Amino acid sequence: MVLRLRLYSALYPSWGPICLFPRSFASCSGNPASCCTMPQLGLLHGRAWAVLFGQLRRPPGAVCIRAVHSHSQGTRDLSPEQMVVREKILDMVVSCFKRHGAKGLDTPAFELKEMLTEKYGEDSGLVYDLKDQGGELLSLRYDLTVPFARYLAMNKVKKMKRYHVGKVWRRESPTIAQGRYREFCQCDFDIAGQFDPMIPDAECLKIMCEILSGLQLGDFLIKVNDRRILDGIFAVCGVPESKFHAICSSVDKLDKMSWKDVRHEMVAKKGLAAEVADRIWDYVQCHGGVSLVQQMFQDPRLSQNKQALEGLGDLKLLFEYLTLFGIAEKISFDLSLARGLDYYTGVIYEAVLLQTPAHAEEEPRNVGSVAAGGRYDGLVGMFDPKGHNVPCVGLSIGVERIFSIVEQRMKTFGEKIRTTETQVFVATPQKNFLQERLKLIAELWDAGIKAELMYKNNPKLLTQLHYCENTGIPLVVIIGEQELKEGVIKLRSVANREEVAITRENLVAEIQKRLSES
Amino acid sequence: MVLRLRLYSALYPSWGPICLFPRSFASCSGNPASCCTMPQLGLLHGRAWAVLFGQLRRPPGAVCIRAVHSHSQGTRDLSPEQMVVREKILDMVVSCFKRHGAKGLDTPAFELKEMLTEKYGEDSGLVYDLKDQGGELLSLRYDLTVPFARYLAMNKVKKMKRYHVGKVWRRESPTIAQGRYREFCQCDFDIAGQFDPMIPDAECLKIMCEILSGLQLGDFLIKVNDRRILDGIFAVCGVPESKFHAICSSVDKLDKMSWKDVRHEMVAKKGLAAEVADRIWDYVQCHGGVSLVQQMFQDPRLSQNKQALEGLGDLKLLFEYLTLFGIAEKISFDLSLARGLDYYTGVIYEAVLLQTPAHAEEEPRNVGSVAAGGRYDGLVGMFDPKGHNVPCVGLSIGVERIFSIVEQRMKTFGEKIRTTETQVFVATPQKNFLQERLKLIAELWDAGIKAELMYKNNPKLLTQLHYCENTGIPLVVIIGEQELKEGVIKLRSVANREEVAITRENLVAEIQKRLSES
Repeated sequence: MVLRLRLYSALYPSWGPICLFPRSFASCSGNPASCCTMPQLGLLHGRAWAVLFGQLRRPPGAVCIRAVHSHSQGTRDLSPEQMVVREKILDMVVSCFKRHGAKGLDTPAFELKEMLTEKYGEDSGLVYDLKDQGGELLSLRYDLTVPFARYLAMNKVKKMKRYHVGKVWRRESPTIAQGRYREFCQCDFDIAGQFDPMIPDAECLKIMCEILSGLQLGDFLIKVNDRRILDGIFAVCGVPESKFHAICSSVDKLDKMSWKDVRHEMVAKKGLAAEVADRIWDYVQCHGGVSLVQQMFQDPRLSQNKQALEGLGDLKLLFEYLTLFGIAEKISFDLSLARGLDYYTGVIYEAVLLQTPAHAEEEPRNVGSVAAGGRYDGLVGMFDPKGHNVPCVGLSIGVERIFSIVEQRMKTFGEKIRTTETQVFVATPQKNFLQERLKLIAELWDAGIKAELMYKNNPKLLTQLHYCENTGIPLVVIIGEQELKEGVIKLRSVANREEVAITRENLVAEIQKRLSES
Repeated sequence: MVLRLRLYSALYPSWGPICLFPRSFASCSGNPASCCTMPQLGLLHGRAWAVLFGQLRRPPGAVCIRAVHSHSQGTRDLSPEQMVVREKILDMVVSCFKRHGAKGLDTPAFELKEMLTEKYGEDSGLVYDLKDQGGELLSLRYDLTVPFARYLAMNKVKKMKRYHVGKVWRRESPTIAQGRYREFCQCDFDIAGQFDPMIPDAECLKIMCEILSGLQLGDFLIKVNDRRILDGIFAVCGVPESKFHAICSSVDKLDKMSWKDVRHEMVAKKGLAAEVADRIWDYVQCHGGVSLVQQMFQDPRLSQNKQALEGLGDLKLLFEYLTLFGIAEKISFDLSLARGLDYYTGVIYEAVLLQTPAHAEEEPRNVGSVAAGGRYDGLVGMFDPKGHNVPCVGLSIGVERIFSIVEQRMKTFGEKIRTTETQVFVATPQKNFLQERLKLIAELWDAGIKAELMYKNNPKLLTQLHYCENTGIPLVVIIGEQELKEGVIKLRSVANREEVAITRENLVAEIQKRLSES
């Protein structure tokens, strides 16, 4: 598809040169001053238009008016309907974290820039920096893990089980951003402290199982591996130690790229010998249960590597605990699992939904990873002035993906969502009754009853009743001349349209009784 | 106080020139390469150090290692104790918003930069911009109101009652930032739509009263004014129309600055004639109830101004509704109230706590405004391609200040806060009982019971029981050789130290019974 980009410069000289994208043509009545063609829609999005501007010699101070009434690329507003779904999911996740004894914690949206450097490996370029407006150099947080480690070091906390629900920001490039957002919500649970091996790690996997089962997302699998095993594999295959991180990043891409492409990256871009890459491939194809752990213990090369043996020993213990928790069948030891982030030091894991949809009517979806985490024993020490470490293990729930699955499911089944919780509507059939309605609704609010009225002096009764039916309000109180004279209020049930007269002093009690019954 | 700033450049050549502030001397073992003196501690904070660097010819790429394990200036972490207090307050605020029929909405943390320009008057310089890393130019949101207006325009929503709880960011300068944060939480409620006058406005004031009463913050007062009355005053006093916004900003400072200083700003900085300023002063000293509205209607000069008359008429109606809501005595018509933001067009209001503390033992505190808002009928039109307007009125609760008051009160009364909700602790008096503990705790978790255990193979019983007493866990289940043999579990109440034996199959039911009773 060929789209046109038009440059307006002559038309609005006071605005400086203006670049207008096709989407907003509707909002502009000017004539194009110049015009160019573009091969791809993708180029129009996000970061890419700076490149585009670059090719076109972006004029200083150019203004893009495409988006004057839009949010920024890769972000979104959550509508009231979406907020209801979101809150249900978050409530469920947080209640699981609390069930496991976690405390809440909150950290700022931005951190000192230095805090985030050298923590994310190849992804470091995706960190959003703030403009240097004077003062400290700041960056938006990229995850909730690094701020947690900074908090532990700063407050010299040696032991803590905390959860944190919050937004993080990543400058994902549009081409790889299939359904990825640049602002998204993470739900993290982490256990910091020196404990006996694999007990907290096993609890993290138990939590992931509880949440994924509880949300009824269909069948799932948790892939488990250990960074020490990966490093061991790299070592025995002949990867130079200086390239461990880079090769680990390549292995991490195996769930999105073919081996051919990953191999090409390893060999052509990262300078690995082809036979070394092929030896790695022999290993990373393996996956299985606890028996694979045993098998790797027997591997003639790997069993010579101290790091790998430590990792395998821990995994063996982990499987033992997972069996006691009754979740071992959900776990797969997968040697291709690498996790992108630099800070992991031990066991790593990632939960994926299996393709069979929860209901026969639904289409299978490829949603990728919905939860992940691992052990990072060296991160806190990077923030401590004396380098003191606090071992940590944790997990992060990818609620955006879960959210889109649940939203899709609700659409498929046509579930209607109430976006307010209003219980009572205050209506009148008569003109000039605003004063009585206001007095009445204040009584209801003061009694803690959720109530609404129409912001009009003289609304029509039918309009008021329709509003209740459309928005799912169960009760209507009606006041008019007649009722005022008799000192009563009519209470109407929206569902069956039955009306009864109730004395004013009994109204609140009667409403509360009805609401507690329903 | 004279503090020393030391510049390290020779010591760590690979890091580039390094600037080290006194606070982190402990974390550095190097020798100072150069040294300078500074007159004020204030200069060390936030934005000021860039100025400082400027004076010192800040070297490109200079790194400040003062804060390597710190959060950024003007922000803070919320500890688990603070999170508990925060959540209680937010729950109370949100439940009030829902009682009034509001829907939830969420918008991104950053907006397109153009979206925020020319919305905040003199405060525009406090907007945080993101670095231009390619792509759109972005800014962190400064409030929740402008994103709401953008949402309405973008989605062509003509009518909506929404609440939004979220963080906003402002580059407050350190000198004026007495207790102000650069990242803080706002709770907003707004009503958008064309309705009969003053009904939604009155509801906003009712909501402020409900929340401030509900949080038991002591006595409070809500100051009310109208931008049209202020403009009318400016007009009849002889302020040129081009200076209305600037003079309004000066009036807004009267709660922090003396009239002498405000007058100086008006005359010397903003070029107002001295006698015009003095005429303004005659008006803005007035405050009172609905009778002051009547009085202003009679004012010989103001009664000639169409704008002012509209404002006064609306205020008269507003007071009528507030009387019906039973809150008129909480409201003060205050002609000095101006509100800083440019976008208000009609009624404006601000709630202040009165100095008498809630409890005799407490010290009086000056906390300033804890809630504020107003009518902004022109903002949505600024985002709409055709300029279509949606009238809006709303309020914002300043939860940070409320939070610090509640926190202070809890400290005064020595209230202890539980930071976890754990109900049951799984303990053992014996060695090598980890497996049984893990099986048992999984049963509890799967039954929805909040449970913890010690992450140790062989913990001491006393340590386990102490942990329960210290963290307020009410129940302990104890399993050992004896219990395992007999097929029972010991259930211990932490409060009275009573223990009973319960069969394994009855354990969950018995725990749930006890928890529902307590």
